[in-house]
Amino acid sequence: MSSIKSKPDSARPTACDRLWRNARLATLNPALPGLGLVEDGVIAVQDGRILYAGSEAGLPFSTDDAGEVIDCEGRWITPGLIDCHTHLVHAGDRANEFEMRLAGASYEEVARAGGGIVSSVRALREASEDALVQQSLPRLDALMAEGVTTIEIKSGYGLDLENEAKALRAARRLGEERDVAVRTTFLGAHALPPEFKDDKAGYIAKVAHEMLPAIAAEGLADAVDGFCEGIAFSTDEMRRVFEAAKAHGLPVKLHADQLSNLHGAALAAEYGALSADHLEYTDEAGAQAMAKSGTVAVILPGAFYFIRETKKPPVDLFRKAGVAMAIATDSNPGTSPLTSLLLTMNMAATLFGMTVTECITGVTREAARALGLVDEVGTLEPGKWADFAIWNIERPAELVYRMGFNPLHARVRNGH
Amino acid sequence: MSSIKSKPDSARPTACDRLWRNARLATLNPALPGLGLVEDGVIAVQDGRILYAGSEAGLPFSTDDAGEVIDCEGRWITPGLIDCHTHLVHAGDRANEFEMRLAGASYEEVARAGGGIVSSVRALREASEDALVQQSLPRLDALMAEGVTTIEIKSGYGLDLENEAKALRAARRLGEERDVAVRTTFLGAHALPPEFKDDKAGYIAKVAHEMLPAIAAEGLADAVDGFCEGIAFSTDEMRRVFEAAKAHGLPVKLHADQLSNLHGAALAAEYGALSADHLEYTDEAGAQAMAKSGTVAVILPGAFYFIRETKKPPVDLFRKAGVAMAIATDSNPGTSPLTSLLLTMNMAATLFGMTVTECITGVTREAARALGLVDEVGTLEPGKWADFAIWNIERPAELVYRMGFNPLHARVRNGH
Ligand SMILES: [Zn+2]
Ligand SMILES: [Zn+2]
Repeated sequence: MSSIKSKPDSARPTACDRLWRNARLATLNPALPGLGLVEDGVIAVQDGRILYAGSEAGLPFSTDDAGEVIDCEGRWITPGLIDCHTHLVHAGDRANEFEMRLAGASYEEVARAGGGIVSSVRALREASEDALVQQSLPRLDALMAEGVTTIEIKSGYGLDLENEAKALRAARRLGEERDVAVRTTFLGAHALPPEFKDDKAGYIAKVAHEMLPAIAAEGLADAVDGFCEGIAFSTDEMRRVFEAAKAHGLPVKLHADQLSNLHGAALAAEYGALSADHLEYTDEAGAQAMAKSGTVAVILPGAFYFIRETKKPPVDLFRKAGVAMAIATDSNPGTSPLTSLLLTMNMAATLFGMTVTECITGVTREAARALGLVDEVGTLEPGKWADFAIWNIERPAELVYRMGFNPLHARVRNGH
Repeated sequence: MSSIKSKPDSARPTACDRLWRNARLATLNPALPGLGLVEDGVIAVQDGRILYAGSEAGLPFSTDDAGEVIDCEGRWITPGLIDCHTHLVHAGDRANEFEMRLAGASYEEVARAGGGIVSSVRALREASEDALVQQSLPRLDALMAEGVTTIEIKSGYGLDLENEAKALRAARRLGEERDVAVRTTFLGAHALPPEFKDDKAGYIAKVAHEMLPAIAAEGLADAVDGFCEGIAFSTDEMRRVFEAAKAHGLPVKLHADQLSNLHGAALAAEYGALSADHLEYTDEAGAQAMAKSGTVAVILPGAFYFIRETKKPPVDLFRKAGVAMAIATDSNPGTSPLTSLLLTMNMAATLFGMTVTECITGVTREAARALGLVDEVGTLEPGKWADFAIWNIERPAELVYRMGFNPLHARVRNGH
């Protein structure tokens, strides 16, 4: 890809800062069918935002009037990829537990050896904010190397105010250390901390009335999430957290219906949630409620694969009901130690039968929608941030088809 | 990792060329249990081969006497990884077919659109040797970036002498273009070429009596393989190929029992095959025969995953019978477009329940055995090639546990 500074010394005003030409675009423009493909495409960028994305023939000015022109030599451009559900900030790993389970250890033996989510809670509480940033950067770098330009990061291993805030601050710092947009989610209602062992109600009250208000006051979270499941919190408990989120003006999300149908999807929809995530056991009523509220279904095949789930999310119900579907890594040490969004797309296709178009839409436009960011990112449309990925591929399907191969040519963030 | 040239100007003779110290070793030495772990380890290399690999305390000379000392700062070292079953040299891809199938196309529709193995045969026949090398290099680079130092590459998309030889020459050239050991395998009996559509016997005769002798005469193949399956060739047909291989002094391998039990494993064992590969339908008699003949079971989880197989290879039978197990990518455009041996290990663990020790052994020592190279590579033992991988990990299990993450710190090949 050659960069030709067309008028470095010209006094004449330029029509845009930079222009990428000779590209094939998957614009994801919802006004176009499928991936919104444009051959012989051009992207013009001004002040970090897209001024024009479409065919060169339709460009309202001459390519000669751009400040800088980049020849893409026929490569494909997609919107920058968006990982809309991660637990990327965590301390340590659970490789030991993984090894024990493969060697035949029972759940009890793993727990006795200090495994399970409590081990992640202990490790995060012991780690400094700096250590969390340092441990998380290689994971973030792995995602960014595949064209990720926006990532959501949840708390949920601190389970007290000090440590939840520490994790969210570490997440915000990742966005300063690297050129990537970070959206943070407060997931205090992830698990019951050991010190509240016999007092779920007490912990939920603390989450809703003490931790959440403090997190909101410090501006540490862009959304609020919870884990609604038999092994975690009930819909009634989640209601208390969601009411508090509403009172503080924060949008909500929910880990819902992963291991059983508690009607978490319907609860999320009732609160106008940005997304409900996992959804293996969601029923038709849940899907209908999500469609009505515009709640995105976030599909997480990494966890399904890693924990050998057999019940698949009802992709067909979502299609029929018109629920938007996103796809994310769920990157976390216990159930999805996954740091490749390309591989995640392959899993969504291979394991759940999602189409190539659904997979690519799910890590761009619909992932943006799941973060409440669809007016800013997720498609190649005028006015949006100039975040995109340029690929060494012959057709978009290759992004989904390959396993363990990264065809990224270049990653552009805010036009650079 | 800092390299300290300890005696660049010394006239005193050195005890070895280079020495890696302050490492934790997974030696894979079969005299030791499990992965043959050594703490506080040292590897001394002379003339590209390992002179010593073990604890620093046991080093028979002073580290000061090494020509060069590399401080590994506590990192783990494993033998260089070995991908012992690939179809890496191919032209084009089958992403289009993948996309069609996800969109609901039937097998017939895909075939009518030119899909299936015949499309790979057509593409390979049309490609020049140079084009094959250029298209295969990015795949090889992806594998090498994860510490692969030896790779097997099969022909099998040419299906006539000229094109099979072209593919094998391209494979040999990959080993010249990159610092990696390439072993080639002649897989003329992969599928029936269109020009022999109604004459399987004629094609097998051609493979055995015309193609194989010519390939052997030119020294293009290190082994001979076939696809023994209802949709490919029978055991009787494979016998003819194996007899020819024997006559030309070439060891054999076999794609066996993948989709049904044709007793391919037992046939492979009867001919003292280096390996039998896939083996989803192999029965106890097959496993026993393999154990007796020392034939390695090559487990290929990528294809199992990609084509949504449900019948798993009988790992437990292999364990009980004492059959050595290797793991490989089966990298190919139709059923396993996979170029990550780390991910392949994760699949073997997650999908087949193979242990961490079995997975790592399967891409090192037993993969070497499957290539007839166990005296040269696959373990960190004196006399073997100094091929190894240095990892940024806390424990070997991390190599199997993570998905889409590459913790390689450095790759050493022949001591460099
Ligand atoms: Zn999650
Ligand atoms: Zn194969």
